[in-house]
Amino acid sequence: MTSPHRESSEVGLHRVIEPAGVLPQGAWRLDNRASIWPDEVRVQVERLNLDAASYRQLHVKHQGVGAAIRAEVLDIVSNRGKMHNPVTGSGGMLIGTVAEAGPASPLGLEVGQRVATLVSLTLTPLAINDHLAGWDGLSEQVPCTGHAILFARSIAASLPEDLDPELALAALDVCGAPALTARVVGQVLSGESGVAPSVAVFGGAGKSGSLALAAARRAGAERTVGVVPHHAEADRLTASGLADAVVVADARDPVEVSAAVVETLGGPADICVVCVDVPGCEHGAILATAQGGTVVFFSMATSFAAAALGAEGLAADVTMLIGNGFLPGHAEYALRLLRTEPGVRGLFESRLGESGKPTYEPGTRKSGRGAED
Amino acid sequence: MTSPHRESSEVGLHRVIEPAGVLPQGAWRLDNRASIWPDEVRVQVERLNLDAASYRQLHVKHQGVGAAIRAEVLDIVSNRGKMHNPVTGSGGMLIGTVAEAGPASPLGLEVGQRVATLVSLTLTPLAINDHLAGWDGLSEQVPCTGHAILFARSIAASLPEDLDPELALAALDVCGAPALTARVVGQVLSGESGVAPSVAVFGGAGKSGSLALAAARRAGAERTVGVVPHHAEADRLTASGLADAVVVADARDPVEVSAAVVETLGGPADICVVCVDVPGCEHGAILATAQGGTVVFFSMATSFAAAALGAEGLAADVTMLIGNGFLPGHAEYALRLLRTEPGVRGLFESRLGESGKPTYEPGTRKSGRGAED
Repeated sequence: MTSPHRESSEVGLHRVIEPAGVLPQGAWRLDNRASIWPDEVRVQVERLNLDAASYRQLHVKHQGVGAAIRAEVLDIVSNRGKMHNPVTGSGGMLIGTVAEAGPASPLGLEVGQRVATLVSLTLTPLAINDHLAGWDGLSEQVPCTGHAILFARSIAASLPEDLDPELALAALDVCGAPALTARVVGQVLSGESGVAPSVAVFGGAGKSGSLALAAARRAGAERTVGVVPHHAEADRLTASGLADAVVVADARDPVEVSAAVVETLGGPADICVVCVDVPGCEHGAILATAQGGTVVFFSMATSFAAAALGAEGLAADVTMLIGNGFLPGHAEYALRLLRTEPGVRGLFESRLGESGKPTYEPGTRKSGRGAED
Repeated sequence: MTSPHRESSEVGLHRVIEPAGVLPQGAWRLDNRASIWPDEVRVQVERLNLDAASYRQLHVKHQGVGAAIRAEVLDIVSNRGKMHNPVTGSGGMLIGTVAEAGPASPLGLEVGQRVATLVSLTLTPLAINDHLAGWDGLSEQVPCTGHAILFARSIAASLPEDLDPELALAALDVCGAPALTARVVGQVLSGESGVAPSVAVFGGAGKSGSLALAAARRAGAERTVGVVPHHAEADRLTASGLADAVVVADARDPVEVSAAVVETLGGPADICVVCVDVPGCEHGAILATAQGGTVVFFSMATSFAAAALGAEGLAADVTMLIGNGFLPGHAEYALRLLRTEPGVRGLFESRLGESGKPTYEPGTRKSGRGAED
């Protein structure tokens, strides 16, 4: 263990190299040394799950060439000491085994315990030791060998015994979405009108989208519609039975997608949950939401300015939430949905594919300028 | 008037040149021709108000050289047909006089009426005809000659007779902030606990910040604290009497600013309103907010990913709102505050300066990499 000259901070400030004075999530570079401070935990990493927006950006940038994608991920981690996509600002999660737990760590983890981190890779010191030799660069799940560090204030979940680790990791990566969706539906139900809300989910066939649909229904939504970008996803979502209705529309086309929602629900949605992995969906979500309604943005590709100014420009009186990746009980809730909703499980398993690799299906892409192109 | 081959859209789609299928706010380039469609209004522009985040970015980029700042603004408008800062994604507002109102325009505006737009410059077709010869590039307020277009669904406010146009424009540019702050305070008051919330405002001496402080107090906040970056602003805010407490802290330093709030309020704030013009304040705002509390981001410099992942990484159960630039009645409310709160008026007037020019006070800048640098 290190006898550091720097005192440990429960939020990891001691691992921030550059710039000074910011939290790990905001830092350009972290110290990813293996030796731990007394209140830290070192995890021997076995797999990363890159978040969808990040992986898509890398895939598009490198035109689907796995070796180039792999090279860039290695480069990012080497330069930054963490997996933090500089374009999307997002990261993902990881699973591994506890290798060492400092005597002052409050996390209650034991050496040998298998865990998933519940804090973003964008704040997790990480070192990769195997050049990602076991990853073909063609999916979000990244087998790797290396180590990661948890701070005193980090949170982690024990990997459940009854689920494949890849499945659990995929669900835990997005577990804020179902929890917050359920909360928002519940708030509307217990609000002034007491009327059960209609809920539209953009990207309804994806990981966070399918969980959000399941959560919305369980929380008492009156009617749900899953919006998907093409017919293969529509078929999968329909087969899952998770949504009351499924519609194909391009969420980047505000007129098209809002018309699709209005037509399907008979009016704009009370709640619109945005779970896409591409930029440019803010205006469609706002147009698809009723006055006085709520838009919940989970997509890491969301542009703050586009949402704020878009609503202003449309004189849209909608509440817009930045989807929080954390709610108390969120991990347990997501795993419960995974276990008890066959539709969710089926979608997740088909996404991971028969060989255990996720099948990546790039959608058609609008041309246009923007930070993420 | 144009006899267009393109049919007019109430949200201005017919003016989008590139890329196809997006709303004006999301477009790279707009058609800023002077001839109007039947449901449009053309405004002879007299003054732009650039939003604070945009102006600061330009000022820093060009190291305060007015001619270079002016040249870039001209360049942007010439290339894009609107004033849409490509780095911050933000714009501002404008005032002018109605030059022509199409017979099918629902806005009820008359030729010769003096108006302020209540929709962002980022979606407003604009042409500048005087090379900004009357602007020294050193402030957010930009005297200019040119024209702008309002769509059927745009909103505008008549310039009040009793206020200087610059004053009214400055308040109208940020009128979403006091309205939403008042709403959030009211929601907490009428919520389960019914306890009056404490409110911290980052950037409390600024335009949106001072209005937010005034609104919070009027809406029933139990205690308010204005957080400012340096002592000159602290003196001004204290003199205004708008906040119960004033504290100097760098909002980009999450530990410093949250400690300052906690020390001043005796605990984290129930509501934290972020009205700064610099990036990097998301984590400080989250740390400064109580579990179960609300963070309202108005700053156009807000990073969605930093907020979402920051809260996740801190296991912070906070509701995070994207500050909507529109609420019903927001313009009238902001002007009412301007008229009836001497503290607000004083701050605005001193910001505009004796000569009518705003005094720009660049703060010290942390080094570091990021999209906005």
